Amino acid sequence: MTEEPRPTLEAVAARAGVSRATVSRVVNGDPGVREVLAEKVRRAVDELGYVPNRAARSLVTRRHDAVAVVIAEPETRVFADPFFALQLRGISKELTAHDIQLVLLLTEGRDDHERVGRYLAGGHVDGALVFSLHLDDPLPGIIRRAGLPTVFGGRPGWPQIEEGGPGAPYVDCDNRGGAREAVRHLMGLGRSRIAHITGALDQTSAVDRLDGYRDALADVDQGLIAEGDFTPAGGERAMRELLDRAPDLDAVFAASDLTASGALRVLRERGRRVPDDVAVVGFDDMLAVAEQTEPPLTTVRQDIEEMGRLMAGMLLRGRGGAERGTEPVEPAGVVLPTSLVRRDSA
Amino acid sequence: MTEEPRPTLEAVAARAGVSRATVSRVVNGDPGVREVLAEKVRRAVDELGYVPNRAARSLVTRRHDAVAVVIAEPETRVFADPFFALQLRGISKELTAHDIQLVLLLTEGRDDHERVGRYLAGGHVDGALVFSLHLDDPLPGIIRRAGLPTVFGGRPGWPQIEEGGPGAPYVDCDNRGGAREAVRHLMGLGRSRIAHITGALDQTSAVDRLDGYRDALADVDQGLIAEGDFTPAGGERAMRELLDRAPDLDAVFAASDLTASGALRVLRERGRRVPDDVAVVGFDDMLAVAEQTEPPLTTVRQDIEEMGRLMAGMLLRGRGGAERGTEPVEPAGVVLPTSLVRRDSA
Repeated sequence: MTEEPRPTLEAVAARAGVSRATVSRVVNGDPGVREVLAEKVRRAVDELGYVPNRAARSLVTRRHDAVAVVIAEPETRVFADPFFALQLRGISKELTAHDIQLVLLLTEGRDDHERVGRYLAGGHVDGALVFSLHLDDPLPGIIRRAGLPTVFGGRPGWPQIEEGGPGAPYVDCDNRGGAREAVRHLMGLGRSRIAHITGALDQTSAVDRLDGYRDALADVDQGLIAEGDFTPAGGERAMRELLDRAPDLDAVFAASDLTASGALRVLRERGRRVPDDVAVVGFDDMLAVAEQTEPPLTTVRQDIEEMGRLMAGMLLRGRGGAERGTEPVEPAGVVLPTSLVRRDSA
Repeated sequence: MTEEPRPTLEAVAARAGVSRATVSRVVNGDPGVREVLAEKVRRAVDELGYVPNRAARSLVTRRHDAVAVVIAEPETRVFADPFFALQLRGISKELTAHDIQLVLLLTEGRDDHERVGRYLAGGHVDGALVFSLHLDDPLPGIIRRAGLPTVFGGRPGWPQIEEGGPGAPYVDCDNRGGAREAVRHLMGLGRSRIAHITGALDQTSAVDRLDGYRDALADVDQGLIAEGDFTPAGGERAMRELLDRAPDLDAVFAASDLTASGALRVLRERGRRVPDDVAVVGFDDMLAVAEQTEPPLTTVRQDIEEMGRLMAGMLLRGRGGAERGTEPVEPAGVVLPTSLVRRDSA
C-alpha cells in the first residue's frame, strides 16, 4: 500500500541549515528561538511536507488536538436518527473553530465498548464526548478507567455518580419541564384521555419525559402509557397497543418526533383523524421530521445542535483548566430550556 | 473533568507478585511466559482495570488496532446521503470482526483536510479508508505524506497516480458498464430522446457514468445532458433545466437514486407521467430511496455495503503484508459488477 517514507526531523534541519534541536523547539512551539531561525524552519517544514510525530510528542505534552465522540448505539441507528447528525454538527463546528479533530468512534454494538475504551485510553485523543448512554452500559466505567476528560450528552443515570456532581459534567435539555408543557397544552385543548408513548426507558431522557407526563396529570391511568424506543417502528408498535387497550384516547404525547411519526402512520391506518379525533405532540423539533409529517407536528423544541456545541465547549475549557493544573470552572450540569412549537397535529 | 489516575504497570506487577518485565511481556502477548504467571498477571489486569498505554507501545509495534475512515465531504452531506451509511456499515462489520476500531474523521469542509492529515500521520491508526475524493482534493497528497497504508473507495482520478497501479489500491463498481446498461434498457423500451443528469463531475464515478451514457448512444445531443451533484436538489435543478431546453425528452438516466428522486418530483410538478411520458432510471439501488419514490425506481444496483467490506478487507490484508515486509498480494483495483433492477419508473 502507499508506504512512502515520511520526511524526518533531520531532513528539515538539513534543509533549514539549523540543528535538530532547533527544529524540535520550533515544532513544539518553544518561543525561545530567534525569529529568523524559526522562519527558516517553518519554510523547510512546508517545503518538505514534514509532519511531527505526534505519537512521540504526545507522551510528553499529552496533546493530540483531537476529541473523541462516542455514541453508545450501533452505527445503523446513528445514521438513521437525525438527532445524532444535529448534535454532531454542533460539536463539529465548535471543534473546527479551535482546529481540533473530531474523531467519531463507531461500534457495531455493545460488545465493542471494551475496544472503544482501549482506544480512548491509548493516548489518541485529549477528551471524550459521550452520548446516548443506557443505564446498564459498561461505557462510563470503561471511560473512567481511561482517565480522560469527559462530557456527557444527557444526564448520566448511573447511581454511583452523584447527579451533577464533580466528575459527571453533562449537557441536557429540560426533559421533564418540556414534557409537562406538552401535556398541559393537550389539556388546554380540552383533551382528557391523553396517552404517552415513552422513549427507551433505560435512558434518563425517556424517564424524565415520563415523569413530566405524570407531573401534569392529576390521575395517571397506567393503561394510557406504552413503551417505545425513540424510533418510528417503536412508535407504531406502541400506538397499536394503545388503540387496542384504550380506544377512547383523544391525545398522544410521544417521547420523540420519530416516535410521533410512527404513531401518526398508525392513526391514519386506523382511520383516526389528527388532530380532530386524536391530537399528537412530539419531542425534539427536528425539522427534517416534524415539518414532513402528515399533518405537520406540534412538538417540544430542544436545541440539539446548541447542546452539541456546548458539550464541546465545556470539554475544551475543562481541558484548558486541566493544563494549568486548575479545576474547571464550568458548572457540572447545564440544562437548556425547551419550548412548545405549535403546528397542525395538536 | 473525570481525571482519575490510571492503574500503572507497577501496580499490576505488585498485585500479581511478579516483575514489571513479566507484566510487560504478558500484556504485549509474548508467549514465553509460564502460564501460571501469565494467569496471575491477567487476573491482576482485570481486577485493577489496567489498560496498557498504547501510545507508548505504538512507537515500538506500530499497531493501534484502529483504522481511519475519511470521507471527503462535509458531515452534513455525510449524514444526509444513505450511501455513506451503507458503506460504513460494510466497513464496520469487517473491522469489528477483526476487533479493530473504526475511527471516523469528520470535517466541516475542505479547509480541515490538513488537520485530518496531521491526525493520520500522528500515529493513531494503522491505515486509512478514503472515499468521495474530488479531483482537485489535497487529501491524497496529504495522506501520501502521512505514509499510511490506504485503500480508496472509488477509482482515484488524479493524474499523477497511474490507474490501478501500485500505490492506489481501490474498490469501485463498474460505473461505465452499469450506465451503458441503463441507457440500453431505455432504448429497448423504444425511447429515443434519452437525457442524462450527471453526478458531480469532479468525481470519477460521475465521469465514468457519463462515459457509459455516451457509449450506448450512436449520436449524443449535448442539450440532453445536464450537470447534477448526486443530491436531490441537484436532480431537481437539472431536471428543470432539461425540460426547458428539451421539452420533447422521453427518458432520463440519473447518475444516482437521490438525483432521480429530485427529478421525479419536478416531472410530477410539471405534469409529466412516469413512465408513460418520461421513463426514469437511477443508479445505486439504495432501498431507502429507490423503493420509496413515486413511482418506485428502476435503477442500476451496486453493492455498496460489500464495497465497504472489501475496502476494509484489502487494507487489513495489506497491513499484514507490510508487517511481514512483503508487498500486498491484492490486485490494486477491484471493480464489482452492477445489475439493472426493474421497478415501475422505466
